[in-house]
Amino acid sequence: MSNEALRSSGYTGTRGIPELRSAIAKDAQEYGQVKFDPISEIIVTTGATGSIFNSLMCLVDPGDEVIILDPTYLGYKEVVELTQGHLRVIPVSVEDGYQPSDEQLKEAITDRTKAFILLSPDNPTGRVIEESFVKTMVDLAQDHDFWIISDDIYKHIIYEGNHVWVSAYPSAKERTITVCSFSKEAGIPGLRLGYTLAPSRIIDAIENMQQYSSLAPQSVGQFALAEFLNKGMKAQYVKESVAAYVKKRDFMGRMIRELLPKARTIRPSGAYYYFLDLRPYLDPLHQTEQEFAEGLLAKENVAVIPGGFFGENGRGHARLTFVTEPEGRIEVGMKKIARYLGAA
Amino acid sequence: MSNEALRSSGYTGTRGIPELRSAIAKDAQEYGQVKFDPISEIIVTTGATGSIFNSLMCLVDPGDEVIILDPTYLGYKEVVELTQGHLRVIPVSVEDGYQPSDEQLKEAITDRTKAFILLSPDNPTGRVIEESFVKTMVDLAQDHDFWIISDDIYKHIIYEGNHVWVSAYPSAKERTITVCSFSKEAGIPGLRLGYTLAPSRIIDAIENMQQYSSLAPQSVGQFALAEFLNKGMKAQYVKESVAAYVKKRDFMGRMIRELLPKARTIRPSGAYYYFLDLRPYLDPLHQTEQEFAEGLLAKENVAVIPGGFFGENGRGHARLTFVTEPEGRIEVGMKKIARYLGAA
Repeated sequence: MSNEALRSSGYTGTRGIPELRSAIAKDAQEYGQVKFDPISEIIVTTGATGSIFNSLMCLVDPGDEVIILDPTYLGYKEVVELTQGHLRVIPVSVEDGYQPSDEQLKEAITDRTKAFILLSPDNPTGRVIEESFVKTMVDLAQDHDFWIISDDIYKHIIYEGNHVWVSAYPSAKERTITVCSFSKEAGIPGLRLGYTLAPSRIIDAIENMQQYSSLAPQSVGQFALAEFLNKGMKAQYVKESVAAYVKKRDFMGRMIRELLPKARTIRPSGAYYYFLDLRPYLDPLHQTEQEFAEGLLAKENVAVIPGGFFGENGRGHARLTFVTEPEGRIEVGMKKIARYLGAA
Repeated sequence: MSNEALRSSGYTGTRGIPELRSAIAKDAQEYGQVKFDPISEIIVTTGATGSIFNSLMCLVDPGDEVIILDPTYLGYKEVVELTQGHLRVIPVSVEDGYQPSDEQLKEAITDRTKAFILLSPDNPTGRVIEESFVKTMVDLAQDHDFWIISDDIYKHIIYEGNHVWVSAYPSAKERTITVCSFSKEAGIPGLRLGYTLAPSRIIDAIENMQQYSSLAPQSVGQFALAEFLNKGMKAQYVKESVAAYVKKRDFMGRMIRELLPKARTIRPSGAYYYFLDLRPYLDPLHQTEQEFAEGLLAKENVAVIPGGFFGENGRGHARLTFVTEPEGRIEVGMKKIARYLGAA
């Protein structure tokens, strides 16, 4: 084996290889005009999942409160409960475009608030957070001394509006943990590589936890990703992906309006999901969204994620994705859904 | 991209790809004559580290006791403490060849004992556990209803004696969690892939934990390892590695006797470490093993692991490894150590 091949099959440092961390620092500065030190403020993780897990395990002590939205990504709740932390939930709804209000956040804060988790663009709703909310959030985090976990895994998958880079706000960087994923930024979810940008004492703690949860991120993918970033391949990849996704988003949107006109949803401004309130169809059938998802898979071989997975406010909803399937298959799938629901 | 390449860059199931789990089941049956169901009793993990972390996180409730040896691998203690479990430590010594006694295990068991962790061959001592102890351990685990975590990552790296496959004992399989690592079995530590064999309810729990700690094992390495096992490459790899290691073990052993005659150690029967009691050299220098390791690195550019990392009984010791370096470099390193200690 060559030296490079030998090196790439060996352990890397728990924070990841220096080449990749330097490339991430450069990429982050170009993207958001914020400097992160590749030695002390960046760690490569086992996907964004490993980053969120290790961050919450480090931050949250028993009794601490973590604020999340409902609905939102299903991966936060169980980890907070594992730490014996308490969840405070801000309900968001289709009427408000799934935007939380400043008032809601203020009401959710207590003297036990340890962190607020913001996912934008959101999974499952595709909502891109408004800048005015981020401003309020940053001010409140400073006033009440809590952490912002900014889950930015879909930051490049934006169709309208802008992604707000939280750590670029004055005073925000020192209390923000930014979670990113190469699954989305390079299209390689199977490689299980992501990264975290945070103040050095948080990176130290995440490194310590990562040492015991996975020892180090996997090596081979790190070398490939350093090349991917250093050779400037990311911009082209993102451009092509977003161009392909936006067409499929619009196509699926037309299908929904045509075939499921009573379903309530927003047009996603980012990510690659539609979150449909199907109660106008499910209620007459006396089906929950869970029964719907199971029945649809069994009868029509179409997979959707039942909305209750994303929180109590996801009841009666289903998440549809347009990321992998071509338009022809999206059309077939949508027609099968409409047939199952008796809408066709 | 080909379908295979596309598939290998996507997420795999949290338990790993079916091809790899089937290959592991076949390998385990050939190795130890024990059947494990690839669907319900095997999970691919993020290295053995991910396996141990997830196993302990699932098993240990606050106040539960976990029994380990001292010295032993440094990766157990912190995870047990993270679960708020208590450690019970069995001291082992060079005089007894680092073998624990039946009596010591009996004394360590209480009504809060949840698990006993056995690492054989051991890191750092290279001790291979005696079969009589395993028999007693299995009986005691049944009588007192505790789990055996059998860390078998070095199971093929054996020079004398036999590795005891704990789950092959009558009644042991149902209370044994067997941890294995492709880092050792295929020589690819950087890929972060290992596997766990256990009763299905434990595999279910590990899967649930793994979903939140890393989502899934990385994909590309799994496809490569399925080929490695299915094409019968493992036997040859193990044979060649062990043949190379045993020569280096004997070479390093001669160097130790020649250059550090007052150091006390055992000849390792497995793994690839010498664990040296250096107090005859360190005490006159008034140095701890930590100061020795730091000084040696700074003055002679030779790295050893200070023994205190492996437990209280490792104080005054250092772990030397012969896995990667050729004999010429082992000789140079040993001479530098002897010079630093004033033994040369």
